[in-house]
Amino acid sequence: MSKNLWKVSTDTFVNEKESIMRMGNVYQIANGYMGYRGTLDEFGPDELVGITVAGIFDRVGDSWREPVNAPNGAYTKLIVDGAEISALTTTIKKHTQHLNLENAVFERETSYEAAGKTITVHSTRFLSADKPNLGVVKYSLITDKAAKVIINTGIDCNIWDLNGKHLVDLKLEMNEGALLVHAVTNELGKKVAAAEMIDCSFGKETHSTAGNQNLHIIELDTEAGKTYTFYKYFTVFTENDNVPSVMEAAIKAATDAKNAGYEKCLSDHNAQWAKKWEYCDVKIDGDDEAQQALRYSIFELLIVAPVNGSANSIPARALSGQVYKGAIFWDTEMFMFPFFLYTYPEKAVELMRYRIKTLDGARRKAKTESVGFDGAFYAWESQDDGDDACTYFNIGDPNTGRDLRTHFRDKQVHISGDVAIAMWEYFKLTGDDSLLLEGGAEVILECARFYFSYAYFQKNKNRYEILDVIGPDEYHERVNNNAFTNMVTKATFEIANATVAYLKEKHPAAFTTLVKKINIENELPLFVEAEKLLYVPQPNEDGIIEQFDAYFKLKDTSIKELKAKMIHPNEYLGAGQGLAVPTKVIKQADVVMMLNMFKDRYSKDIKKANWEYYEPRTEHGSSLSACAYAMVATEFGNLDFAYDYFMRTAKIDIEAKYKVYVGTIFMGGSHPAANGGAWMTAVFGFGGVQSTAKHVSINPRLYKKWNSLQFNMIYKGDRFNITIGQNKVEVIAAATNKTTHTFIISEQSLVAAPGKTLVHVVLAKNLA
Amino acid sequence: MSKNLWKVSTDTFVNEKESIMRMGNVYQIANGYMGYRGTLDEFGPDELVGITVAGIFDRVGDSWREPVNAPNGAYTKLIVDGAEISALTTTIKKHTQHLNLENAVFERETSYEAAGKTITVHSTRFLSADKPNLGVVKYSLITDKAAKVIINTGIDCNIWDLNGKHLVDLKLEMNEGALLVHAVTNELGKKVAAAEMIDCSFGKETHSTAGNQNLHIIELDTEAGKTYTFYKYFTVFTENDNVPSVMEAAIKAATDAKNAGYEKCLSDHNAQWAKKWEYCDVKIDGDDEAQQALRYSIFELLIVAPVNGSANSIPARALSGQVYKGAIFWDTEMFMFPFFLYTYPEKAVELMRYRIKTLDGARRKAKTESVGFDGAFYAWESQDDGDDACTYFNIGDPNTGRDLRTHFRDKQVHISGDVAIAMWEYFKLTGDDSLLLEGGAEVILECARFYFSYAYFQKNKNRYEILDVIGPDEYHERVNNNAFTNMVTKATFEIANATVAYLKEKHPAAFTTLVKKINIENELPLFVEAEKLLYVPQPNEDGIIEQFDAYFKLKDTSIKELKAKMIHPNEYLGAGQGLAVPTKVIKQADVVMMLNMFKDRYSKDIKKANWEYYEPRTEHGSSLSACAYAMVATEFGNLDFAYDYFMRTAKIDIEAKYKVYVGTIFMGGSHPAANGGAWMTAVFGFGGVQSTAKHVSINPRLYKKWNSLQFNMIYKGDRFNITIGQNKVEVIAAATNKTTHTFIISEQSLVAAPGKTLVHVVLAKNLA
Repeated sequence: MSKNLWKVSTDTFVNEKESIMRMGNVYQIANGYMGYRGTLDEFGPDELVGITVAGIFDRVGDSWREPVNAPNGAYTKLIVDGAEISALTTTIKKHTQHLNLENAVFERETSYEAAGKTITVHSTRFLSADKPNLGVVKYSLITDKAAKVIINTGIDCNIWDLNGKHLVDLKLEMNEGALLVHAVTNELGKKVAAAEMIDCSFGKETHSTAGNQNLHIIELDTEAGKTYTFYKYFTVFTENDNVPSVMEAAIKAATDAKNAGYEKCLSDHNAQWAKKWEYCDVKIDGDDEAQQALRYSIFELLIVAPVNGSANSIPARALSGQVYKGAIFWDTEMFMFPFFLYTYPEKAVELMRYRIKTLDGARRKAKTESVGFDGAFYAWESQDDGDDACTYFNIGDPNTGRDLRTHFRDKQVHISGDVAIAMWEYFKLTGDDSLLLEGGAEVILECARFYFSYAYFQKNKNRYEILDVIGPDEYHERVNNNAFTNMVTKATFEIANATVAYLKEKHPAAFTTLVKKINIENELPLFVEAEKLLYVPQPNEDGIIEQFDAYFKLKDTSIKELKAKMIHPNEYLGAGQGLAVPTKVIKQADVVMMLNMFKDRYSKDIKKANWEYYEPRTEHGSSLSACAYAMVATEFGNLDFAYDYFMRTAKIDIEAKYKVYVGTIFMGGSHPAANGGAWMTAVFGFGGVQSTAKHVSINPRLYKKWNSLQFNMIYKGDRFNITIGQNKVEVIAAATNKTTHTFIISEQSLVAAPGKTLVHVVLAKNLA
Repeated sequence: MSKNLWKVSTDTFVNEKESIMRMGNVYQIANGYMGYRGTLDEFGPDELVGITVAGIFDRVGDSWREPVNAPNGAYTKLIVDGAEISALTTTIKKHTQHLNLENAVFERETSYEAAGKTITVHSTRFLSADKPNLGVVKYSLITDKAAKVIINTGIDCNIWDLNGKHLVDLKLEMNEGALLVHAVTNELGKKVAAAEMIDCSFGKETHSTAGNQNLHIIELDTEAGKTYTFYKYFTVFTENDNVPSVMEAAIKAATDAKNAGYEKCLSDHNAQWAKKWEYCDVKIDGDDEAQQALRYSIFELLIVAPVNGSANSIPARALSGQVYKGAIFWDTEMFMFPFFLYTYPEKAVELMRYRIKTLDGARRKAKTESVGFDGAFYAWESQDDGDDACTYFNIGDPNTGRDLRTHFRDKQVHISGDVAIAMWEYFKLTGDDSLLLEGGAEVILECARFYFSYAYFQKNKNRYEILDVIGPDEYHERVNNNAFTNMVTKATFEIANATVAYLKEKHPAAFTTLVKKINIENELPLFVEAEKLLYVPQPNEDGIIEQFDAYFKLKDTSIKELKAKMIHPNEYLGAGQGLAVPTKVIKQADVVMMLNMFKDRYSKDIKKANWEYYEPRTEHGSSLSACAYAMVATEFGNLDFAYDYFMRTAKIDIEAKYKVYVGTIFMGGSHPAANGGAWMTAVFGFGGVQSTAKHVSINPRLYKKWNSLQFNMIYKGDRFNITIGQNKVEVIAAATNKTTHTFIISEQSLVAAPGKTLVHVVLAKNLA
């Protein structure tokens, strides 16, 4: 395997805000606990240096609540012969930077020219995958001539925040060699501490807290050509960590790391990464471009997978900053969760625990939204407490400068069903019912309860309908009987009824306790009726499913025609009076998303017909759209298209050409849902993998360019390595597996016993 | 009675477009068949001369369908010593104009100075109340010095049209002394003819059809100081008149009128007007300002009352032009109909026949709107065929130049109930069931059927709800359970059920035929259930009825605050993203409108509480609003307020200070709904008159300024003259009445026998 498939590199530095912002996304590292944007050691808030901490939020005044960024303990800036050295202001002779995908290490080397001398700095940075609160930097410098160098290194407390100053009462101290910053969050007064220690064997050190920076000042007269290397160990702790003292914990973790030393920290970190890749890598033989893009996508998911036991989830822009309020959307369940469920279930559990943790928030939302509903209406934009961070005016209109009333928060009701479906998928594919018992069943029943209270019965038509919603296509708000939403609702009733049946049989006592706790006994028969009588729009005579009531009556206009009418390039096309609203132009996969989610329920012909109808009408204004179209395209054999959209999805973050504004809102950052979509398109789409409670089926439709697709998966707790070639499928069941499993490969049922390899020769006709 | 209470006059002519437009409204005349704007003889399309014909509509291209304006047969322009004489360009020495309310005669006298001479023209103009197709002009001129005068008089075919040229294939002819114009409408090819004859005993006449004008050219050398008078008889016929030839009919009618002569035409006309005022006048003693405004309001209604047998209705801007598409709104049933029902039932019948005539249009609309509904969904803006003239983009946004998606057409479902309620009121107060039998019952049942198919059942709450509507307050679109709409719906079910009961008992054969014709038998029990289980929002603990679901959660802002945010003075405050949408600010009476319509069902306390809650939040952005607030205010005794809002309502057209733009749409014209509202406020409000199927009750609450209020009314076909003084009520039953009736005056029940006078002394405490 060529080395560059494990590395993202550049040898240029473009000194423009826009490029620095985008590169900050591409080169970011993270360890689930926190992210560190791909910025240079000497950068500050203006260059969007950000250490975004998962699961801690704060609000200033009337602004949005958003994640808290920690003080930057990885900061280092040099002064050489009195001149500040920075990529922003100093002449650069040479610059290279790398992101190592193997172990999430960021590396940069820059040669500067200043005061007639060449100064070369080299640093490596990683956030420990072994110790979540820890970050480590190795920093080296060489001057080509003797020079007077002052190293400013420590914690920069000038923090990039989108909506105000979240850390208040900042105290900058030095404590037995450790720099310490402690503070509390503005809104809830949560304690936050950052510490930093250096391991430096040269120069003369003093301490400074000027300019809101807590720094070691190291004065050094360099010898020409000699390398000076020092190490930084920086830590972040918050009250969410459940430690007796965040300050003491921060200092201790930094001290322990320093005592262990750089190499030990790195090897512990690498060991974790080796395991991640062992579980999660996907190999595409014969297509390096696809390989790199997909691996980068997987990397992006791995760096933000929640810390075990945290009950955190993954925000829509991951840990790349505070954009999108650091909020968790349906993106997680529908686009990221499958990757973890198939490859790294201990992370999938955390995502689901997050929804259990925020169930009370979802209940509060149901009770208070509009006329009030029963059950659990999950937040459209969920933060730490499950209350909705989504506002009623979520997009600014660049044409008028006014905030638009959007209904994402109050009408995008499919979110509850998305959660219930993921919860049930976990049980179905792992066979592990512990999550159901620790709150998952309660989540499911409360979601069904919500839908029942939201549903209306149409007497003339003898059916339940789901009215006044937004489906995935957010350009059409307040629609009735959105096919996607109704199907998700129906699935939720099915799952609730299945949950009841399962618990009754397997855990009768727990069932009784739960039913009593949430006082739901009388409603259970209603869920059975609703499952039966809920209306789900069906294909018409042409096989097309109407996206929502009267969608077919909307104006059929081309996307080009529509965009020609835009007054402002960032104007939003939805929200009541947006240009797309009266037209058939949709933002993203909606019916096609449903066909993908519920692929068992629809024939190839229906999928093809709807795909062909909706694709030209889809603006793909969301990064979630292309992969749904790609996956459905693999099912009816349009592999060229599927490949094109797979590549668009897989390359979104590595290329970083995405739009960064919706209306007047900045939303630049990474796209973990697309990353998950890329993985799904490879494994579910081209690989044709689909799992039920009873078996795994594989209907390969490998792209012509690919010699093979190789990946790992976990099913019912057992591990498999699967290789799909152009004319055979190989399934290796791990020797440590506990039991046999059925694999149906191109309609042939095979049994995978522990330690055995199944080989199935695929006939050409099966390759669609 | 002072003469000026029967006359509107001015002695100035303001040579500005805006003033000419407004004066054209104030001084308009009409006879139900057609209107003639209050413009001067020499004016043309640029001065908005308009002869708007009732009940004939046309559409050009993609523009709105609108009423057809007829060629102007009242046109006369002088040329004196080579100079064109026109109020627009010639120096005016003196100008007076009058509108005689007694008989709807427009009169003007203008002295011009031109070529060193004074030319005085005097003309009177009326549209015959006796012969609907006929208009008559008497035109005189005097020059103070001998002059060479050329009189251009005839038919000006340069027509003011808002949306394109509706009359095509125009032919201008002279036919045995009669000028004749015939043409067809652009869309449906309906024939239209206009004729004109003059009776002129001087000058030398030639004929010209230059410049799209069909003219007599009369050359005359005047003697100084001599009056030259001629008469014009102009007629309009359309294919709607059901005559064998519109051309022949037009010529014949003009010829007949000429043969009869001016005085005969005028006396026939006056005789009709005497009857109208005998039925309809209201006398306010002690308050000339109120008297004049109210009489003018009544006059405005009388001029546009439909021709007997026409089955026409009254457009929202009457016959003052093509604005609002000449469309019939709920305005007619809710604001104008009561006046006719109480004073002039043969006109009320036509208004109802119009709804019977357009029932098929309402059925088409129900079937095709959105997902399709059953029954009759009346057009929000109804023209000749009952199809909806209201577009989905009914208001332009001056901020962006785009048309706004409005939901007036598809969501203002209360219109059907408004029609059913009026239909039933007619039966209830006249006792005449012929209208029910000739289609009224079918209308009622089809309206109930529509509501049943529109309603949804909420199982948890065991009730029907009416979702996704616009109530009278159009600033809040797509709301659920609007109190007004739900109550109207409930009333419709009540009325449908009462209709069924009545027909079953009194007209079983007709009932059977009807039930079969519209195949409704199985649905009738559903209407009974719906009457019982339909949810109507009830007063909360403070007595306030929530206007719609979650209205109370909207932002409470002042109207002033809201308006300060406007970018453009004409920007519309509703429609999805309008400034009022997220606030409690409402356009017009909504809950208060309901309290007024269903006054029997709510206590004074509830009325007062809601009035006080909603009034400060009401922008009164509709001319329908103030009278509803005024009437409810009389009920709980805030008479000063009631008087203020009564006067605003009554003066709207005589003062003509109304706004003339909504968004980018010109909507200047008269306000017959407000005119009807003024009458209702006087009679129902201050007079306290209310009729049920069993009796008439009078609970007087006369305004302190008024010595007495005197009016006529018809109840069950019998006539009464009622005088309400500050401390007594006198009811004179006409000697020609057929039977006795019960009057409950301030809670005392009295019997009014034919020819008898009831006198009831009102105690001070009853005067609220």
